[in-house]
Amino acid sequence: MVRIGIIGAGRIGKVHLESISTRVKGAKVVAMADPFMNDETEAFIKGYGVEKIYKDYKQILADPDVDAVFICSSTDTHSSISVEAINAGKHVFCEKPVDHSIEKIQAVADALKAHPVKFQVGFNRRFDHNFAAIRKAVDDGRIGDPHIVKITSRDPEPPNPAYISVSGGIFLDMTIHDFDMACFLVNSDVEEVYVASAVLVDPAIGEQGDVDTAIITLKMANGALCVIDNSRRAAYGYDQRAEVFGSKGMVATSNDTVSSAVVADANGVTGEKPLFFFLERYMGAFAEEVRQFVDAVENDTEVPVGIHAGMQSVKIGLAAKKSVAEHRPVKLSEIC
Amino acid sequence: MVRIGIIGAGRIGKVHLESISTRVKGAKVVAMADPFMNDETEAFIKGYGVEKIYKDYKQILADPDVDAVFICSSTDTHSSISVEAINAGKHVFCEKPVDHSIEKIQAVADALKAHPVKFQVGFNRRFDHNFAAIRKAVDDGRIGDPHIVKITSRDPEPPNPAYISVSGGIFLDMTIHDFDMACFLVNSDVEEVYVASAVLVDPAIGEQGDVDTAIITLKMANGALCVIDNSRRAAYGYDQRAEVFGSKGMVATSNDTVSSAVVADANGVTGEKPLFFFLERYMGAFAEEVRQFVDAVENDTEVPVGIHAGMQSVKIGLAAKKSVAEHRPVKLSEIC
Amino acid sequence: MVRIGIIGAGRIGKVHLESISTRVKGAKVVAMADPFMNDETEAFIKGYGVEKIYKDYKQILADPDVDAVFICSSTDTHSSISVEAINAGKHVFCEKPVDHSIEKIQAVADALKAHPVKFQVGFNRRFDHNFAAIRKAVDDGRIGDPHIVKITSRDPEPPNPAYISVSGGIFLDMTIHDFDMACFLVNSDVEEVYVASAVLVDPAIGEQGDVDTAIITLKMANGALCVIDNSRRAAYGYDQRAEVFGSKGMVATSNDTVSSAVVADANGVTGEKPLFFFLERYMGAFAEEVRQFVDAVENDTEVPVGIHAGMQSVKIGLAAKKSVAEHRPVKLSEIC
Amino acid sequence: MVRIGIIGAGRIGKVHLESISTRVKGAKVVAMADPFMNDETEAFIKGYGVEKIYKDYKQILADPDVDAVFICSSTDTHSSISVEAINAGKHVFCEKPVDHSIEKIQAVADALKAHPVKFQVGFNRRFDHNFAAIRKAVDDGRIGDPHIVKITSRDPEPPNPAYISVSGGIFLDMTIHDFDMACFLVNSDVEEVYVASAVLVDPAIGEQGDVDTAIITLKMANGALCVIDNSRRAAYGYDQRAEVFGSKGMVATSNDTVSSAVVADANGVTGEKPLFFFLERYMGAFAEEVRQFVDAVENDTEVPVGIHAGMQSVKIGLAAKKSVAEHRPVKLSEIC
Repeated sequence: MVRIGIIGAGRIGKVHLESISTRVKGAKVVAMADPFMNDETEAFIKGYGVEKIYKDYKQILADPDVDAVFICSSTDTHSSISVEAINAGKHVFCEKPVDHSIEKIQAVADALKAHPVKFQVGFNRRFDHNFAAIRKAVDDGRIGDPHIVKITSRDPEPPNPAYISVSGGIFLDMTIHDFDMACFLVNSDVEEVYVASAVLVDPAIGEQGDVDTAIITLKMANGALCVIDNSRRAAYGYDQRAEVFGSKGMVATSNDTVSSAVVADANGVTGEKPLFFFLERYMGAFAEEVRQFVDAVENDTEVPVGIHAGMQSVKIGLAAKKSVAEHRPVKLSEIC
Repeated sequence: MVRIGIIGAGRIGKVHLESISTRVKGAKVVAMADPFMNDETEAFIKGYGVEKIYKDYKQILADPDVDAVFICSSTDTHSSISVEAINAGKHVFCEKPVDHSIEKIQAVADALKAHPVKFQVGFNRRFDHNFAAIRKAVDDGRIGDPHIVKITSRDPEPPNPAYISVSGGIFLDMTIHDFDMACFLVNSDVEEVYVASAVLVDPAIGEQGDVDTAIITLKMANGALCVIDNSRRAAYGYDQRAEVFGSKGMVATSNDTVSSAVVADANGVTGEKPLFFFLERYMGAFAEEVRQFVDAVENDTEVPVGIHAGMQSVKIGLAAKKSVAEHRPVKLSEIC
Repeated sequence: MVRIGIIGAGRIGKVHLESISTRVKGAKVVAMADPFMNDETEAFIKGYGVEKIYKDYKQILADPDVDAVFICSSTDTHSSISVEAINAGKHVFCEKPVDHSIEKIQAVADALKAHPVKFQVGFNRRFDHNFAAIRKAVDDGRIGDPHIVKITSRDPEPPNPAYISVSGGIFLDMTIHDFDMACFLVNSDVEEVYVASAVLVDPAIGEQGDVDTAIITLKMANGALCVIDNSRRAAYGYDQRAEVFGSKGMVATSNDTVSSAVVADANGVTGEKPLFFFLERYMGAFAEEVRQFVDAVENDTEVPVGIHAGMQSVKIGLAAKKSVAEHRPVKLSEIC
Repeated sequence: MVRIGIIGAGRIGKVHLESISTRVKGAKVVAMADPFMNDETEAFIKGYGVEKIYKDYKQILADPDVDAVFICSSTDTHSSISVEAINAGKHVFCEKPVDHSIEKIQAVADALKAHPVKFQVGFNRRFDHNFAAIRKAVDDGRIGDPHIVKITSRDPEPPNPAYISVSGGIFLDMTIHDFDMACFLVNSDVEEVYVASAVLVDPAIGEQGDVDTAIITLKMANGALCVIDNSRRAAYGYDQRAEVFGSKGMVATSNDTVSSAVVADANGVTGEKPLFFFLERYMGAFAEEVRQFVDAVENDTEVPVGIHAGMQSVKIGLAAKKSVAEHRPVKLSEIC
């Protein structure tokens, strides 16, 4: 039984609490901390049988009954808490991104060299049934050598403008999942990034120096080309599809829906919209990523998404920002 | 070059005229006859380069330049003109049904024994790309031994009540195509018929002693079971699907549409309705059935749909009527 | 918190134990009984925190800490234990079928009149996301008045022959779910049944007097016609589809799969087979039916599947058997 | 009746001959010329009733009985013959591309200013049922303002290496159709092009200085972003899909197949591969583009694809080549 302390009781911290408590065998949340802990949150947490509830996450790090910590605090604290937790000998599951700074992510990597605990980054989409099926088809050689990777990733609605300003921009906030997905689907790093982008959804996003619509081209280290298309607002909901095309064929996935029901009437043949947003679409993936983290801790095996993936995705994000700023393709080797 | 005379210049006669003229190589319409021939129709026919236009079909039968006749007159004349044409040594393509009377169909069969010309019945749906693909999958053994056949056949709108009274009823008019399809898909005759039926679309149909909604169960001679469901009115258009399930798997088809375009918006994901009715859906099949008839004439090979199929489908239709009347399963051997 | 005692620790009892423990809020399994309780089963049950483990179910009925019992014992004991539980004032969730005998089901109905506890029958498929979506479309009037109901229900593999002999035959064992589904989808009872059936999967099934392939036609009390097709063995797995056609349109569902991944290669475009069998396909439905039962108990509202449904489905099953035996359509009013 | 002379009797010339003769009303091929005319070709042409067969296309231009010419000769002669034909007062249907040189296309445009005959460029895909349905959905406002355009265009197999060297490279030979499609789908010109490309299909293609795999990003004049992905070899056949995403929704098309038949068996659920190549997929479009050209000639209305489209597509192609050569985004205004 892996005993888990969750640092951060915001939305994603609560998702992990519920998911671990009801859908992950062999793990148990024993402590939870949040600087803004209040009565309501405390009651919610206690409802899952968690007894140790703190404001200060350091109490979790100091607790010998905690085997692993989940870092679900604000992004700017991920890397420093990670280093502390690693030095305290705790296994770490860190939400994405590890940081917006390469230097700070490197500090986490350095800490791991000194204290080789398990460290997993929360790229939950790798554990989605559809994307995992693509990767399996690629690994099984069903499509041959990958030539083209296509990822469609569109949110149902943009975040509020206040969030935009602290998000690091669309590439470090939203597309970072797609960057990791590209690497995951064909098991390769990225060498070069080019972005064409626009503000088409909401001028307020542009006013904050960010974009809301983008087509990002990646050259992968294995020679494949990849394209990601992003929008902050799809009128029909959360659009999450991928396709890998290779020398022997293609594998592609479509969106998930609540049901397969289709109504044919005088207006046409109408099926359901995609599941609304990430909590609906990736609930299974949130549980599965934790199961595999728990497995890695229990059996002392490699985690499925390590610090390299955490570093790679941020580098691609920074290269994407640079590509927009300088209107040219940017090599990952330029980012340091 | 097979020289064709078309008897009957109603809708289906015109369909064959246009289809043969523009889409069938190796055949040519040289004559056309209709007792109600008028200027407009004559102009239409001449537009396809047909020079011999008559009121009396006997002129076609007497014409040594005509190799084959298409019998597209009213149903009650199909069998007698067929016999005349056969006796005149013409190859015959006869629209379905050959007749509503077993005796009269037998007369055609007898004439064919005496004069073995080519005689094909116009069960055009056998030549539809989708249904032909099912039959091919069955023939190729991809689904093993057939166990269950399912046919959905729903019209977009009922015929006008006046037609109902001369149609012979839904089973001889509409379902007859599905009866032939059942035999075709698994290459087997039928042994027994049971019908559950209702008047749900239009009370006027019931007032004429007919039904507009039916589920027909067939026991096939090869041991398979078959179910056909019919409605005279599908709000979304012409619904023409089939499925064969067997010991090794299943093959199924869906409806054809004008395009594959799908629109996703706040209301869902909407594709097109099926092609509206038989002229749209089966236009390719109308050409293909003639191509194969012409092949059979030119190469003296067997026609793809002979008098046996013409007889079998009517027997099933009469058994279906008897099943409704007597509220019990009826064996085909009872029909004679 | 509804405290539940489970009677019967076979496969379905264990399914409910796990499902209630991990996926149903507001309910808790406190006791479990099975005459063949052994160490392994006991350990499994204890793993879910259940403390009271018995051989004799009467200990559960006598326990004042038990609010509701789940009857998951062998079919021949369902009705008698139901009556005992009702008389003991326990709410009852009874697995299907309630019994093979109309008389014994009536005894349960009579007990309920005397002691109006909540009594729900385990027709889990009503709670499946796909079938629930069909019913909702019907209730919302999207397809108008229902005219035709079609249910495809094919198992991936037949039960072992020993089970066939105690199963009551395909109609009371397997099709009973489909009978209930027909009633559920269009919210109507059944008036008449006709069956065409065959032994095409395994001669051993025929040797036991049962069939393995069937097409069942139902006349519904609301005027709609329904057809169910069954096979004991679909090479591609568990085939569970339905369609309702009405005056304004049609609603249909397809099978669920592990993922939406589709591989296109030189052989074609290949998607996944349906989820293997009922434990995979209906796991969500097993949780949902219990959630609604718990709701009904807690809020003293009507259960979603009561004794009428339990009685109706068995009557249809008995009529189906009679239809096979007497080779004719059988009215439900003949069954008593 | 529009009387047509076809210049060039290669593959595409023959396609137009057959298509006009059998599927286009109101037009007739009266003459055909090819410098390499031989007996076999002559027999083929005569089979369609064409009487005037020449080696020298100038005989067609001089023929007062010819209303319009189809220029189906080799690409390097398109523009000069176009100018000659325009000056001779013939309407012109010119195969794509008009030329590889902007200057020469401009010469055609200049000739048209002096002699305003009808001049249509053979971008047949605009007339495909699927792509036309996308454009209609866009025009009807069903997806709102276009934000993202996605075009997948993959050939079933690469041309032979000898052809590569005269083709002008993938962008002027293959992608030029997709460039025109991008402009067509959202009714907009292009402002900037960026290409990521690779040689992944056949090293021989790379040896000739060309690429076989590419992801091309376009900035459209209307603000939308577009991405095209190309491969010279898709193992599953001709992949021709498009999608337009906008402020109110998305419209997308899938590939066409010979039939809708799907086989479910122990290996999965398998549908057919896309139609093999352009002759199969776009046969209907070849007829439709001519129908609309004939309409424009007969009714003196605007042609659906004029010289502007011919110029725009080549400019984009040249910008794409420059983008590869200089590894940067290239504005169309740089091409002159």
